[in-house]
Amino acid sequence: MRLHQFHPSGNCYKIRLLLHHLDIPVELVDVDYLGGETRTPAYRKINPIGRIPTLELDDGAFLPESPAILWYFAEGTPYLPGDRLQRARVLQWMSFEQYDHEPYIAVARNWVSYAGIPRGKEGELRERQEKGRKTLSVMDEHLRANDFFAGTYSIADIALYAYTHVAREGEFDLSLYPHVLAWLERVRSQPRHIGITERP
Amino acid sequence: MRLHQFHPSGNCYKIRLLLHHLDIPVELVDVDYLGGETRTPAYRKINPIGRIPTLELDDGAFLPESPAILWYFAEGTPYLPGDRLQRARVLQWMSFEQYDHEPYIAVARNWVSYAGIPRGKEGELRERQEKGRKTLSVMDEHLRANDFFAGTYSIADIALYAYTHVAREGEFDLSLYPHVLAWLERVRSQPRHIGITERP
Repeated sequence: MRLHQFHPSGNCYKIRLLLHHLDIPVELVDVDYLGGETRTPAYRKINPIGRIPTLELDDGAFLPESPAILWYFAEGTPYLPGDRLQRARVLQWMSFEQYDHEPYIAVARNWVSYAGIPRGKEGELRERQEKGRKTLSVMDEHLRANDFFAGTYSIADIALYAYTHVAREGEFDLSLYPHVLAWLERVRSQPRHIGITERP
Repeated sequence: MRLHQFHPSGNCYKIRLLLHHLDIPVELVDVDYLGGETRTPAYRKINPIGRIPTLELDDGAFLPESPAILWYFAEGTPYLPGDRLQRARVLQWMSFEQYDHEPYIAVARNWVSYAGIPRGKEGELRERQEKGRKTLSVMDEHLRANDFFAGTYSIADIALYAYTHVAREGEFDLSLYPHVLAWLERVRSQPRHIGITERP
């Protein structure tokens, strides 16, 4: 099984973190994302949208989209609750992550610390940072009364941890969100946690 | 059970369509989205992000995010496959819908046909429409060789149908995508289909 990935990407880290929790080995195939490899015809055969991560299964099938890969591995494990409403809550927070978190916090991080701010997008960066702060406030409010996003530690926490813990690389000041900071520490203290820079 | 919704919203229509397939009754509570009701403190108690749809369960709990609501009702029904990889494929296409379809096709439709183009966003509209056309091409290519998005008719098709079938309201020319057009017809021919304007 192979994971086509770009190591600093939070979306790719989510998969590595879950697989490490589950002690499932995977071969990492590094894709030159910043150099444009995801836009090449060869990569488009793996993933027509040109996205990372993409999982290559043992039979040669490709599974893209980090929420789908997380769900695929988490089903039947403690990282996805057995209760139907709790499973829906996991998907609720994973959807929140994709729609209200990643486009603001991950994109700001990518522009500020990796790819550079695209020409003429300075105003859009500020807009995304403002929306990202609203997202962090919603998380902080939820974590005021909850240890984790969907009851127990799950792939919802893994999905949200990936870009939150490096949000300062997008110029977010996490000290304004004390409940988020405490939750980051709870995530880090889970058995078999690994950091984003580690190669399992 | 009550669905807090704005009737023309594709995200709300997805839920109505699935519930009608399943013959599950739900009370519709219309929210004045264009008038700003989702931004009021009263609505923020229902959904801190101020989003529609939000499902209110019989015990008073609230479940937001259309993918989570769809998943909640589809589990154990023919609208979500029993095979683990097929379920992951459903989530793959639902993630594609949320990340690569809704922000372009639904937002363009909302600006062009409902809320009006926000001041100074004309260039952004054109950018979103260009990305939306790329999304429709990816769908067309997949549907060239597949009747549905994840094997059989599922909540992935429901999720993608909702904003695709009204894409012309965002100035998209669907006649350029013949396989998408044929799939729209296959979706419409499913038992107990209802249109977006109908009130079940």
